[in-house]
Amino acid sequence: MAGNSFGKIFKLTTFGESHGPAIGGIIEGCPAGLDLDIEAIAHEMARRKPGQSAIVTQRKEADAVEFLSGIFEGKTTGTPIGFVIHNQDQKSRDYSHIKDSYRPSHADYTYDKKYGIRDYRGGGRSSARETASRVVAGAIAKQILKDVRITAYVSAVGELELDQNSMPLDFSEIERNPVRTANAEAAAKMEDYIRSIRKQGDTVGGVISCYIDGVPVGLGEPVFDKLHAQLGKAMLSINAVKGFEYGSGFAGTRLKGSQHNDLFNPDGSTQTNLSGGVQGGISNGEPIYFKVAFKPVATIMQSQQTIDKDGNTVEMKGKGRHDPCVVPRAVPIVEAMAALTLVDFWLEDRSAKL
Amino acid sequence: MAGNSFGKIFKLTTFGESHGPAIGGIIEGCPAGLDLDIEAIAHEMARRKPGQSAIVTQRKEADAVEFLSGIFEGKTTGTPIGFVIHNQDQKSRDYSHIKDSYRPSHADYTYDKKYGIRDYRGGGRSSARETASRVVAGAIAKQILKDVRITAYVSAVGELELDQNSMPLDFSEIERNPVRTANAEAAAKMEDYIRSIRKQGDTVGGVISCYIDGVPVGLGEPVFDKLHAQLGKAMLSINAVKGFEYGSGFAGTRLKGSQHNDLFNPDGSTQTNLSGGVQGGISNGEPIYFKVAFKPVATIMQSQQTIDKDGNTVEMKGKGRHDPCVVPRAVPIVEAMAALTLVDFWLEDRSAKL
Amino acid sequence: MAGNSFGKIFKLTTFGESHGPAIGGIIEGCPAGLDLDIEAIAHEMARRKPGQSAIVTQRKEADAVEFLSGIFEGKTTGTPIGFVIHNQDQKSRDYSHIKDSYRPSHADYTYDKKYGIRDYRGGGRSSARETASRVVAGAIAKQILKDVRITAYVSAVGELELDQNSMPLDFSEIERNPVRTANAEAAAKMEDYIRSIRKQGDTVGGVISCYIDGVPVGLGEPVFDKLHAQLGKAMLSINAVKGFEYGSGFAGTRLKGSQHNDLFNPDGSTQTNLSGGVQGGISNGEPIYFKVAFKPVATIMQSQQTIDKDGNTVEMKGKGRHDPCVVPRAVPIVEAMAALTLVDFWLEDRSAKL
Amino acid sequence: MAGNSFGKIFKLTTFGESHGPAIGGIIEGCPAGLDLDIEAIAHEMARRKPGQSAIVTQRKEADAVEFLSGIFEGKTTGTPIGFVIHNQDQKSRDYSHIKDSYRPSHADYTYDKKYGIRDYRGGGRSSARETASRVVAGAIAKQILKDVRITAYVSAVGELELDQNSMPLDFSEIERNPVRTANAEAAAKMEDYIRSIRKQGDTVGGVISCYIDGVPVGLGEPVFDKLHAQLGKAMLSINAVKGFEYGSGFAGTRLKGSQHNDLFNPDGSTQTNLSGGVQGGISNGEPIYFKVAFKPVATIMQSQQTIDKDGNTVEMKGKGRHDPCVVPRAVPIVEAMAALTLVDFWLEDRSAKL
Repeated sequence: MAGNSFGKIFKLTTFGESHGPAIGGIIEGCPAGLDLDIEAIAHEMARRKPGQSAIVTQRKEADAVEFLSGIFEGKTTGTPIGFVIHNQDQKSRDYSHIKDSYRPSHADYTYDKKYGIRDYRGGGRSSARETASRVVAGAIAKQILKDVRITAYVSAVGELELDQNSMPLDFSEIERNPVRTANAEAAAKMEDYIRSIRKQGDTVGGVISCYIDGVPVGLGEPVFDKLHAQLGKAMLSINAVKGFEYGSGFAGTRLKGSQHNDLFNPDGSTQTNLSGGVQGGISNGEPIYFKVAFKPVATIMQSQQTIDKDGNTVEMKGKGRHDPCVVPRAVPIVEAMAALTLVDFWLEDRSAKL
Repeated sequence: MAGNSFGKIFKLTTFGESHGPAIGGIIEGCPAGLDLDIEAIAHEMARRKPGQSAIVTQRKEADAVEFLSGIFEGKTTGTPIGFVIHNQDQKSRDYSHIKDSYRPSHADYTYDKKYGIRDYRGGGRSSARETASRVVAGAIAKQILKDVRITAYVSAVGELELDQNSMPLDFSEIERNPVRTANAEAAAKMEDYIRSIRKQGDTVGGVISCYIDGVPVGLGEPVFDKLHAQLGKAMLSINAVKGFEYGSGFAGTRLKGSQHNDLFNPDGSTQTNLSGGVQGGISNGEPIYFKVAFKPVATIMQSQQTIDKDGNTVEMKGKGRHDPCVVPRAVPIVEAMAALTLVDFWLEDRSAKL
Repeated sequence: MAGNSFGKIFKLTTFGESHGPAIGGIIEGCPAGLDLDIEAIAHEMARRKPGQSAIVTQRKEADAVEFLSGIFEGKTTGTPIGFVIHNQDQKSRDYSHIKDSYRPSHADYTYDKKYGIRDYRGGGRSSARETASRVVAGAIAKQILKDVRITAYVSAVGELELDQNSMPLDFSEIERNPVRTANAEAAAKMEDYIRSIRKQGDTVGGVISCYIDGVPVGLGEPVFDKLHAQLGKAMLSINAVKGFEYGSGFAGTRLKGSQHNDLFNPDGSTQTNLSGGVQGGISNGEPIYFKVAFKPVATIMQSQQTIDKDGNTVEMKGKGRHDPCVVPRAVPIVEAMAALTLVDFWLEDRSAKL
Repeated sequence: MAGNSFGKIFKLTTFGESHGPAIGGIIEGCPAGLDLDIEAIAHEMARRKPGQSAIVTQRKEADAVEFLSGIFEGKTTGTPIGFVIHNQDQKSRDYSHIKDSYRPSHADYTYDKKYGIRDYRGGGRSSARETASRVVAGAIAKQILKDVRITAYVSAVGELELDQNSMPLDFSEIERNPVRTANAEAAAKMEDYIRSIRKQGDTVGGVISCYIDGVPVGLGEPVFDKLHAQLGKAMLSINAVKGFEYGSGFAGTRLKGSQHNDLFNPDGSTQTNLSGGVQGGISNGEPIYFKVAFKPVATIMQSQQTIDKDGNTVEMKGKGRHDPCVVPRAVPIVEAMAALTLVDFWLEDRSAKL
């Protein structure tokens, strides 16, 4: 109940703080008989890894996953898959300055008030390091959903938007540029912008778009567990996320019904897809697409005034190696959470009919 | 597991189709000893009720709630609160035209594919009628959260936005106008606009904003059940919702960290509140605010081409009495889902410390 | 979470007090497409009903089930099945004597201490009346499990045991005698005994045995949700149950491994079945059998000393119409809970393999 | 959902096979602020450990617990407690003989049929090695329940029962003898008996009794999650358990209500305690006591006929080092599962009243 699990049948439960000995998790409900592609998991981990380019945090974390159970002779056995990722680059001394103070717009204050104690080292449990475990599970989920293609990409960095009119989407570009945007020209601009932000000791927000095709009709459970509701929760549970919209989203609120309705083709597909691949909370076979808003990283390399736990005003400045913009590394996390959402509904749908 | 429940401790499970004998639900985990204010529940129901003004559906539904258990001599007993709301104005004949055809952008097609069968009368389970049960439970949740004030209001109807610069927010206006917007001038414009849309036989989308103060520090469960993630799921589970953002939302992605961070006051409150009252997934005591995007209602009084279940093209035109714009009646639903989210975290927080 | 639900996929949630307006429940996760046999449900209800014979309580309860949702044109639709059973024979005055006093070995004291309030009429939520809702759901579960035969019967009333050596089991006898035991001779003795107990104003305990065949191999989820563990919980959740054993049970503890092991036949069946149809928590295709111990009903028609809520000693004597022995009417409840347990594992097993 | 978790608020999820790299688990919902006594955990682990005496398996397993998260400066932080126990004494070669054959009364056959694959080494997930993780979590639960005393002991080994009339219970004896029974004289007899069984290459069953005092009034959730129902499930989920009874148990079925009812004292305590400390599924403050039946260990050092996966008859004889009688080492497991059950209800009860 305590909030460390995602999914009902295919269920990930994570543990771990950023500067404890290890993070990790347990994946329950992974069907038996999957030939696990360990390389594919490592590939996803590498996409999330710190130090992968000049525009992300330069922390060194190997992020090697050690599987402890649930796999036998290369196949999943139906029993829980336990795994750990050891924390190598702990450097606890970097965080001593926040032991007694609350960083603005971080979780320091709220954890302290909620629990009466917090592991202040690197944000502890509130650190985005936890998302590494999600990427592990998501990579397995992707292997189960073998006909589903999940493609996330950066569609905005600060005020720089990927304008699809002037800069056409090219998914093959995404992994070719460190920003993970879907257009080479936009990538160059965004990369320059992130570099300039970093030089200022500042950070900036951004938007990730995700496009999923190959989803079978029928996934999603009315009425509270609508596909898009659970997808939204999945995305909003990622650190720094402030918003989620799918299909026509906020812009769709300005339209009339006569403009917004997706008329059917005779085969059940639709002529338009403002619905975003979901109707009544259930996938209709059309591509699912959505956007996720990320706020700027709270840790900046500029001096800020804050308070300590006794309410005294103190000066604070970010230390260590942080991301000037989180979206390039968040792309595989968005994909992982989408995969976890879909695989769970896919298994749940097995019980829909007699 | 099947998606009909919301909440973990204070948990609502609903049942019912729009044209069956009744809808209703079971509320589990309502703490014992609450002096239930039945009038307050009826008041919330009246805010959601069809026929309440000229700009909403003119269906007649009494929406009287009958409580069957869990209450003794006016007080909650800690046992499950069962309740039913009888469907009075069924008029099943209105829906015979959709028996074999799929209405565009409705759930007809997806339910049929998922379950192999559907109750086609009035949308069956996919009808927003189900939300009446949420309002019942939400009204009880509000009574438990007696220091929390939850105020939702319409902040946009189609392209008409409530611009806070030119039209200052006045919460006392909300229940004075049929649109439920927070400014009298905006209300008049929006009402006119909805009337014109209705005359066209069309519908239009809108946005509901919600502002909550009095929330104690510490609500929300890291890491998957962050307060705003569950709140987002709650909102996205409401019929017709396409997006959710809280705090700075999508606009916040354009800012730098130095602009976005909420600096502390010595008492732990913050000087700004771009965080929207939630940090690291846990409430920080500042007001929580968020926006919910509603698409235009799919049933329009214009002729549309669609398909029947055999893939034949057929002509279809909405019948019956539908909302030209759903947001005025969705205001109490947004509040109900917010209350359900908060009361559950409030109870869950009781286990945070030894 | 609050304990009113049973099952994970096929999930029953019940509500209702014995003397409120109605009891009822919601069945979630019933697969779509089942042609519901309403007569079969009524038949099960009649087996549990008060007043069915001279040796059970003479209360009059029609126990008519009203279905409110989830069924369309005679078929389940995959949406939640809401139902109510109105309480007709309430006679609240019968219970006024226990308003302020605690009946010995009842739940009056514990409910009062836990919740600070209790609906004292007829035991309120703690009354076995709640089990009527279980029988409804169990009757539906039985219809899904159409190759599974679940046969419960009374195997002991007080000291009268159904000795299989002298009184061979004949399942066709069960519904022919009011005791629901599986041997005509035993039935006569047990019936006489119950009549004599009733005359004394006393009550007596008993044992129900259950035998299930046709269960497919593979049901049950290691490690905490072993088939027999969930089955045990199911039985122990029935009012008045004090013990559960399956397969060789307590007697098996006296055996050696060389005596107890069930050797295989070449087809995977076993030569003996001390395992009781479950190995490692998973059904092995052999018949499942178990015993359930019921204590004597606590309400007796004799004077007993007890206390009121202020700790004063008071005299109390049972009023109303109570069962002198609960096991005859508990037979369909045992079957219902067994069916609920199995149908849920049957659906869960659909996700075991890729 | 998949059956690897126990508890709702204080929730243990385990992973691991007997011969994989490690077993372990995640404990969620442990309240923040507990000064963790690591020695006490190690003490419980030592009580369960192989090789602790001459009458248990002589396998060497250090069973050192490595905590990976959720603890900071010696205190629990409210975040999930991840832990691993490395498997040291794997000796996989011992198990090659069962690769293609099914051991009688083991889980080999059922796992293979359910999942289509199994980790045959040492029973894999079905091995009682998994219970080591339960003892870790139970030891933490015990520390939270500091006023509750949970005392389990062996009350029968095969036909040797601890007859309380001739052999009075002395809890101080339990940890002084390798059988863990509560009377020195009985201990000597039982130990001799187990030695003789071992010499025969055989195994024998037994019974564990458990006595718990200091439980506050009000634990347990009606109606499906009655305290004794969840306790029964907890016990039945332990490997080799065939039965559970509490309070008067099966013997109580022979009594009349007038004999069985526990009359109150003026302070709310009861003059007798046939209820076993639970009434209506809720603790009443009296001692809770129950018995758990363990079948003989299936692995015997005698030759048995069995089948391979193709249905061929093969000869099989146990190899390795197994327990001739499992009850001495199961005592701490019973206590652990009791503690897990109680701590979860204790936390859940925090939400019972407003």
